Amino acid sequence: MSISLGELAVRFGCELRGNPDTPVDRIATLGNADERSISFLANPRYRQQLADTRAGAVILDAKSATVCPVPALVCSNPYATYARVSQLLNPSPVFPPGIHPTAIVAPTAHIDPSAHVGPLCVVGERVSVGPRAVLGPHCIIEDDVRVAADVRLVARVTLCHGVDIGPRCLFHPGVVIGGDGFGFAPDKGTYVKIPHIGSVRVAADVEIGANTTADRGALDDTVIEEGAKIDNLVMLGHAVRVGEHTVIAGCTGISGSTTIGKRCVIGGAVAVAGHITIADDVSITGFSMISHSITEPGVYSSGIPFEEARAWRKLVGHFKRIASYARRLKKLEEAQGLTRPDEEDDD
Amino acid sequence: MSISLGELAVRFGCELRGNPDTPVDRIATLGNADERSISFLANPRYRQQLADTRAGAVILDAKSATVCPVPALVCSNPYATYARVSQLLNPSPVFPPGIHPTAIVAPTAHIDPSAHVGPLCVVGERVSVGPRAVLGPHCIIEDDVRVAADVRLVARVTLCHGVDIGPRCLFHPGVVIGGDGFGFAPDKGTYVKIPHIGSVRVAADVEIGANTTADRGALDDTVIEEGAKIDNLVMLGHAVRVGEHTVIAGCTGISGSTTIGKRCVIGGAVAVAGHITIADDVSITGFSMISHSITEPGVYSSGIPFEEARAWRKLVGHFKRIASYARRLKKLEEAQGLTRPDEEDDD
Amino acid sequence: MSISLGELAVRFGCELRGNPDTPVDRIATLGNADERSISFLANPRYRQQLADTRAGAVILDAKSATVCPVPALVCSNPYATYARVSQLLNPSPVFPPGIHPTAIVAPTAHIDPSAHVGPLCVVGERVSVGPRAVLGPHCIIEDDVRVAADVRLVARVTLCHGVDIGPRCLFHPGVVIGGDGFGFAPDKGTYVKIPHIGSVRVAADVEIGANTTADRGALDDTVIEEGAKIDNLVMLGHAVRVGEHTVIAGCTGISGSTTIGKRCVIGGAVAVAGHITIADDVSITGFSMISHSITEPGVYSSGIPFEEARAWRKLVGHFKRIASYARRLKKLEEAQGLTRPDEEDDD
Repeated sequence: MSISLGELAVRFGCELRGNPDTPVDRIATLGNADERSISFLANPRYRQQLADTRAGAVILDAKSATVCPVPALVCSNPYATYARVSQLLNPSPVFPPGIHPTAIVAPTAHIDPSAHVGPLCVVGERVSVGPRAVLGPHCIIEDDVRVAADVRLVARVTLCHGVDIGPRCLFHPGVVIGGDGFGFAPDKGTYVKIPHIGSVRVAADVEIGANTTADRGALDDTVIEEGAKIDNLVMLGHAVRVGEHTVIAGCTGISGSTTIGKRCVIGGAVAVAGHITIADDVSITGFSMISHSITEPGVYSSGIPFEEARAWRKLVGHFKRIASYARRLKKLEEAQGLTRPDEEDDD
Repeated sequence: MSISLGELAVRFGCELRGNPDTPVDRIATLGNADERSISFLANPRYRQQLADTRAGAVILDAKSATVCPVPALVCSNPYATYARVSQLLNPSPVFPPGIHPTAIVAPTAHIDPSAHVGPLCVVGERVSVGPRAVLGPHCIIEDDVRVAADVRLVARVTLCHGVDIGPRCLFHPGVVIGGDGFGFAPDKGTYVKIPHIGSVRVAADVEIGANTTADRGALDDTVIEEGAKIDNLVMLGHAVRVGEHTVIAGCTGISGSTTIGKRCVIGGAVAVAGHITIADDVSITGFSMISHSITEPGVYSSGIPFEEARAWRKLVGHFKRIASYARRLKKLEEAQGLTRPDEEDDD
Repeated sequence: MSISLGELAVRFGCELRGNPDTPVDRIATLGNADERSISFLANPRYRQQLADTRAGAVILDAKSATVCPVPALVCSNPYATYARVSQLLNPSPVFPPGIHPTAIVAPTAHIDPSAHVGPLCVVGERVSVGPRAVLGPHCIIEDDVRVAADVRLVARVTLCHGVDIGPRCLFHPGVVIGGDGFGFAPDKGTYVKIPHIGSVRVAADVEIGANTTADRGALDDTVIEEGAKIDNLVMLGHAVRVGEHTVIAGCTGISGSTTIGKRCVIGGAVAVAGHITIADDVSITGFSMISHSITEPGVYSSGIPFEEARAWRKLVGHFKRIASYARRLKKLEEAQGLTRPDEEDDD
């Protein structure tokens, strides 16, 4: 599609510097843009690319606009404006309403006439699929699931019995919502399975990445609140709660019965223990081990950056000898007649 | 369903304190229970909730029973009894015997008449599916697979050619058993694929979580022994052996040719190296790196709990300078005329 | 199948010590081989098994051949020769050309007549499937995808719109290529979705393990170069580039916009940060945290091997007190009148 800079400025509340009739067709990086492209500058470290860009226009903030050699759409949050302009120029695919003849839909399921049920979907009893919802190919919707309006399940998504998916959620291929949680009672050397009779409730505007899984609770529900964004290959255990507008990056695991607050940012490959609570507005850097609750907003870490392997092995060797270093330090202090705080005494 | 306390006491070998005719319909937490609910107290830290519970009855041990204000089912392992009562009150769904008309079953497959083959399953040549086994929608069973009695594949499970699944196994959506292992022979800067002609054998009563994968061996079989429980998004490499009644939590990876003993408890996000052996009765805490064999039962760890990010960065800075601290310590000891054990000398 | 040692020697350029007419049927380990088996010795630590083997022949190098009690195929790279002999003795299954009647293929898709499209596949508009390509059961190929010659998608592989798969790629069940990347622009406490209009391009001879995901880029493509091998449950973020003949083991995550060089070997459960560059010929040991770029070939690490849990907790306690140890060291040096390099001063 093609749109004029003037229309973009009006629609997204930008100040336009340049000819409002200039048309743009597509979005591109500063380096790849041509005169029919609109580009953006959100990260100051790319500002030097501005001088050479051949973009038809650039979305940027007022400060950068002063050095922009081409037409500019000036706004306070260029990254968000870029996202919105890109959404406009790259609209989501449209899926025709109706049920594909190869889909298998239980007689008691209620599919809104405006919804799309793709090829080879299996939809169980008493399922409700809302207006304009899109079930891509090969989705499995077990009994008693509710899929709200404007949800899109891209393909091959499994929603187990009774789960509830709020409006405008977007789930990528391979997502599994509502498998049994991992709960067993030890008894005489074996395990007794604990039935998982809780469900999973996902609020509005949640996006979940490919092959991510969220288990159902044993007694309480697993809950993902409004606007949360969850990346690929993430595991949410039983009865986990993820707060609204919280972001969780790929390969992270959240153990059962843990509550993550609102507006948190959890990096990739983070391991969060079970039965703990993370406060609102907490950021956790990637590859951290979160072993106990976090009560204050802030940034938290535990990963140790790499070294060349030989150097690393020496560091590890020293680390493993750290108790003896502490003892030697104490001995030296005694020899020297120095005293030190009692709380450092234990080893 | 509804059941009387008296029947529960008889069935599960509990001592009943209260009216045997009292009916209960459902299981609930102490806090959520009403008079038609049965609850349980397995963890002493919830004991104070007992005073206020409105449960029709509580499953607990003899010690807690003395302070229980409502009818009690007294037993030595309340958590296991809770699990069994919950299984009774929440029976597994029943699937009608027979092959769904949309399933594609090879002519040489043998499906027991009491088994259920769900919609859109694909079942290969010479497959055997045992009595009462349930293949949920979209399962793919390649040639020469054996699925024993009472197995349940919830949905979308892939069993690659020749794998063998023992009785009463329960596999959740997205599980892949028997993909090729990750084995390549380096040759002149590229890799030659090693055929994986081993299989995967899964014994009885194994549960495997959503999107977990277990690869087949190059020459030997990958083996999961009886009663093992494996969580979501776990990776079992080629020719791994998991011992009976071992539990592996989510996001853990076990590299190829490693043997995990019996009755082990492996936490989440653990990384286990290849070609090693973990003894029976080993517990590994979450987020540990298991780089070599463990020969003795016990508990093992390697994760470092997080700190606030600035404090953490300082710790890491100190860690990276630890060799110089060791040198300075040595120098001080020399200046002081102190000697120290030789084995701490190397850096 | 059966083949003579003489034919194997000619075909794979080995020196034969023994009767060229001796037939072998199968490949086996030294311990399990019988006289109709061919075995191999690639790792010197198994050399003592040579004395007792009952194999019909053994593939090994010249040095080991001197102590081999049975016929030998002598070559410089026995492991690669084993792989090739095993490929010959265990040929890939053959799939009949043609489109299974239950597959749903869009009218504008072009399927080469020699290709196999399995049961219940869904193939979108303008898809191109090359000669001899095999789409196993339940594959989903969205619009505008290109699948080159001799590709094999084992089963249940999802290729999202527009992705491009080079010749001879092999993808295992559950692989998802081309899901949206994880990109959102923060705006007033919520997130605006960034459309992912880049694609994923996979070059020739790439193998990808079960349930691995590779996201599409926001603007640029995600690229996997020729001959790369990627294990199960790996996550490749948006606009990642994996260099040719690079190997990535299971459970590893590569964050968005990161470039991995050629001929790298990345261990399992490694976490690689976004927007960084790893040079060619880098090896990273398992469970490492790669937080910044690596500019030189070499081996890099950051995982700390485990200890028994009590000992580990003590080590962690010392680690958390390391700043105070450094201060005490400094104080001792001052008391002693020792000086030390300035660069170690900061804490």
